[in-house]
Amino acid sequence: MRWCRIEVEGRPVYGQVEGDDVVLVNGSPFEVWTRTPRRLPLRDVRLLVPVVPPNFYAVGLNYRAHIEWAARRHGIAAKVPSQPDVGYRSANALVPTGADIVIPRDSGGPVEYEGELVVVIGRRAKNLSEDEALGCVLGLTLGNDVSERTWQRGDRTLWRAKNADTFKPMGPVIVTGLDPMARRIAVRINGRTVSEYDTAGMIFGVRRYLATMSRYVTLWPGDVVWFGCDAATEPALEPGDVVEVADEAIGVLKNRVVREA
Amino acid sequence: MRWCRIEVEGRPVYGQVEGDDVVLVNGSPFEVWTRTPRRLPLRDVRLLVPVVPPNFYAVGLNYRAHIEWAARRHGIAAKVPSQPDVGYRSANALVPTGADIVIPRDSGGPVEYEGELVVVIGRRAKNLSEDEALGCVLGLTLGNDVSERTWQRGDRTLWRAKNADTFKPMGPVIVTGLDPMARRIAVRINGRTVSEYDTAGMIFGVRRYLATMSRYVTLWPGDVVWFGCDAATEPALEPGDVVEVADEAIGVLKNRVVREA
Repeated sequence: MRWCRIEVEGRPVYGQVEGDDVVLVNGSPFEVWTRTPRRLPLRDVRLLVPVVPPNFYAVGLNYRAHIEWAARRHGIAAKVPSQPDVGYRSANALVPTGADIVIPRDSGGPVEYEGELVVVIGRRAKNLSEDEALGCVLGLTLGNDVSERTWQRGDRTLWRAKNADTFKPMGPVIVTGLDPMARRIAVRINGRTVSEYDTAGMIFGVRRYLATMSRYVTLWPGDVVWFGCDAATEPALEPGDVVEVADEAIGVLKNRVVREA
Repeated sequence: MRWCRIEVEGRPVYGQVEGDDVVLVNGSPFEVWTRTPRRLPLRDVRLLVPVVPPNFYAVGLNYRAHIEWAARRHGIAAKVPSQPDVGYRSANALVPTGADIVIPRDSGGPVEYEGELVVVIGRRAKNLSEDEALGCVLGLTLGNDVSERTWQRGDRTLWRAKNADTFKPMGPVIVTGLDPMARRIAVRINGRTVSEYDTAGMIFGVRRYLATMSRYVTLWPGDVVWFGCDAATEPALEPGDVVEVADEAIGVLKNRVVREA
């Protein structure tokens, strides 16, 4: 099933994508829902961020080639994490597919993409075993963890570097029933593939992360976990670029880059 | 005005505390609201967390004596931040006054309090000047930034150290019309005052922080910013302790400490 969140008469509404149509739903995938008889052509609807998460988790370093690339760039030794610690992003920065990524006026850059798998939690969960862990998942979507590398290095926290408004494109839709460890994520800039990797390469997989997290934090319906990216994240994004994060089964998250006026 | 959020017939409802009563409100302080004729005795209601924030910001190092104390403890040089960078906490960890702080089973501790001023945003804001900054504030409440110091030192992020379930008591109510820079915050353990400081001692004040943040991130109604604490945060919290964070005008945030069963 392909869940979308769209704007209908000025309000956010959930729907299910079927072929070229969206079937509108009363309720949401995170609670009781029923299909309505109303259908809209997919080409006429504006997709919103598929969920506004109560808690917004992001795995920082979870692929070897990305860790090694980042270490080379900074002239330091590559260090693979010894346990699955998770970080945070913030909902202010979310934008849907089709929205602009706005580089702040005073950013010296580089501003880079990170194309990531996003796991959307569907059921409240605590103390999950690894075997149980995928049972709390509603489905998968994609994220672009846009990062301003000068601020990432220089600030004490990642607030501007990774949470500036529009820096967290997420979407296009949430797809149920897929194996999160069998995705192949590609990033394209202006149609040219600049990155491609398999989620099978995660250092700590989705089951391990969710089980460990749920030992200390309750996972809530609508929470999202972004799972990091592999390899380099170059070239930098420039105003005018169109950047896409794509997976064959999930779809394409597509955003244009502009500079703040 | 003293805004509270309470449970009425199983649902969260906003109210205004007047003397010994709560006047129930339709709507919320973050949108259109109207008072209803319904009143409940304050002693009969259960206070909830006064807001579930869309974005949950926390200032890490914002008072000199706390920075110096932490540096001494770790045998490193005290370093005062050169600019107002902000960090994040997560809503899963919020509990209201009266709820238990639960120390996870495998925590080796110490688990410590940090009694903090919390600024609650009332109006959407971007690109505020310092002069305008307080115009987006609804009011003030209190927070206890409970911290597991072993995990804080050893993990790559603060997720367990500061965002374990129940580690973010916030409340008791949101009070409007107060000067955030003229608060005197006390922390008591089992009735004994263990910490007391003035918010006037902030390195970067509330105006400066909000103005800087709003340059890069949109502040949304319901967002909260926790402003850090001054001085030491000892002694550690032990199961059975009752910890209070108090300000004369805001009230008392009171929580018991237990260990996970």
